[in-house]
Amino acid sequence: MEKLNVAVVGATGAVGREMVSILEERDFPFADLKLLATERSAGTVINCKGEEYVVEVTTPESFEDVDIALFSAGGTASKKLAPEAVKRGAIVIDNSSAFRMDGEVPLVVPEVNPADISKHNGIIANPNCSTIQMVAALKPIYDQVGIKRIVVSTYQAVSGTGKDAMDELQEQTRAILAGDEVKAEVYPKQITFNALPHIDVFFDDGYTKEELKMVNETKKIMGDEEIKITATAVRIPVLIGHAESVNIETNAQLTVEEAKKALDNFSGVRVVDNPTELVYPVQLDTEETDDVLVGRIRKDDTIENGLNLWVVANNLRKGAALNTIQIAEKLI
Amino acid sequence: MEKLNVAVVGATGAVGREMVSILEERDFPFADLKLLATERSAGTVINCKGEEYVVEVTTPESFEDVDIALFSAGGTASKKLAPEAVKRGAIVIDNSSAFRMDGEVPLVVPEVNPADISKHNGIIANPNCSTIQMVAALKPIYDQVGIKRIVVSTYQAVSGTGKDAMDELQEQTRAILAGDEVKAEVYPKQITFNALPHIDVFFDDGYTKEELKMVNETKKIMGDEEIKITATAVRIPVLIGHAESVNIETNAQLTVEEAKKALDNFSGVRVVDNPTELVYPVQLDTEETDDVLVGRIRKDDTIENGLNLWVVANNLRKGAALNTIQIAEKLI
Repeated sequence: MEKLNVAVVGATGAVGREMVSILEERDFPFADLKLLATERSAGTVINCKGEEYVVEVTTPESFEDVDIALFSAGGTASKKLAPEAVKRGAIVIDNSSAFRMDGEVPLVVPEVNPADISKHNGIIANPNCSTIQMVAALKPIYDQVGIKRIVVSTYQAVSGTGKDAMDELQEQTRAILAGDEVKAEVYPKQITFNALPHIDVFFDDGYTKEELKMVNETKKIMGDEEIKITATAVRIPVLIGHAESVNIETNAQLTVEEAKKALDNFSGVRVVDNPTELVYPVQLDTEETDDVLVGRIRKDDTIENGLNLWVVANNLRKGAALNTIQIAEKLI
Repeated sequence: MEKLNVAVVGATGAVGREMVSILEERDFPFADLKLLATERSAGTVINCKGEEYVVEVTTPESFEDVDIALFSAGGTASKKLAPEAVKRGAIVIDNSSAFRMDGEVPLVVPEVNPADISKHNGIIANPNCSTIQMVAALKPIYDQVGIKRIVVSTYQAVSGTGKDAMDELQEQTRAILAGDEVKAEVYPKQITFNALPHIDVFFDDGYTKEELKMVNETKKIMGDEEIKITATAVRIPVLIGHAESVNIETNAQLTVEEAKKALDNFSGVRVVDNPTELVYPVQLDTEETDDVLVGRIRKDDTIENGLNLWVVANNLRKGAALNTIQIAEKLI
């Protein structure tokens, strides 16, 4: 296999660091690795495959000789720098929301729509974390009987916001236990021992951008504009791992056993569902797994063809860094 | 107003203590107050309206001369002792699940079905906490346009389990921050920084008893067996306050504005919904309120007549102790 020059943009962030460690874990065949970030983080030393890499400031010229650039530096940085990388011959896999709904940019979960990768014009977008795990869990069901409507409520970890939010949850928790004053800076309200029905900005219709992402990205990845999706996105005091309560209406009957079989045979998905033995997936389980875990699979008898699912995954890995690198692996 | 002799059974538990303080807050017109519990808690001194009361062991004879007995001591105690209280002339308002689905026992949320109170034969049941706040929020909408189907996912506080669970959440949190070993005794898995899709026992169809309660109790309180309800009940690391993501299909169109107006005019419900100004209800808000708070009211365009709501209430007060005492107030 040809060895490629890889760059990671935003290498010192929560997802960026996860990308570097996944490149190592999966022994990704890079010739050279360039770790890029803002001026504030330049000079940081990060290890990968036994080598030390010094983080450099990202400039347009950073992308000379780069074959694949993995971006996780926020939408503004992606909009500015991804075209510079493409201009210099790199293929960009972007983890921000900047290009996800761009008609020219494939939005890819490798287990779900791998064929879309080849349609790229230099940029491939990585979906939102809450979308990735939902479509991975729903695709095998979709392939069996089609899906008409999805009602989803999320239970999302603070690491989806970033390292600052993880620090805030821990610092608030410490302050509460010590009886100190609680400071909320990353989130508008205390997140410890609380839940915030508020992820990303609000639109005039009362939905958040996160909820809209789940609607639009799911349709694009599934390649089906007819699926109806309504979402409520909620942040809860969990460090790593998103959970989702997903209610679906399928086009035809699928028994719980058939759903389990379809899910179990699907790459990247694992059924964890034997509740009377206390076997169901929880967010803490995802710290060590790359799989999307599906449990609490139940027939919903309130409609003709209904199912309830509980879908859990590591938002930093499958929800971000891992999915990005899996796209890169499919590329080469 | 005639003054009554009141007994609180389970007076030293999380809900029992809340009952005593609500009797005081609302200046409930009791002549005598008897605080009852198990042998383990007998002798505990609890203050109410400036008097000290010594907790006694509950026996059948405890109910001699009691007019109203408020039970919050678990289903087994209720099954055994409520008939003893009734036999001695008391009216029992029971917070356990023992009698809720009994055809002879009214199941009451005073704002929703007050007329059912008069149908009692000595026992009136207080609904499950997660049901109370949902039916309170849905009743004004139901009265306007009817409700066909409810899809609900809950975000429930550990205080619903009891004081031991509140201690466990805090102790696990302390242990994690200190790097100590985490012990899970009340719950089968760690609850700190985690969410458990598991409340009460599992049935063979994969649903939990908590989920079934939301289905059956809602139909009974609304007096409508035709409403379709599917629920996913989840425990999250919150001390006090349950939240619910509720998706409903109504029988006719109701705009968001009409829904807000109906909710705002309904006793015991308060609309907290101006998200662009960061106004939405959260569980921490409920520590000081008796209202059921409703926010994130959105049109669900995936069906003809759909709405999404975020419903939050104090599970110990409106979800248990307060509702019980409101029933008692209606009785007298």
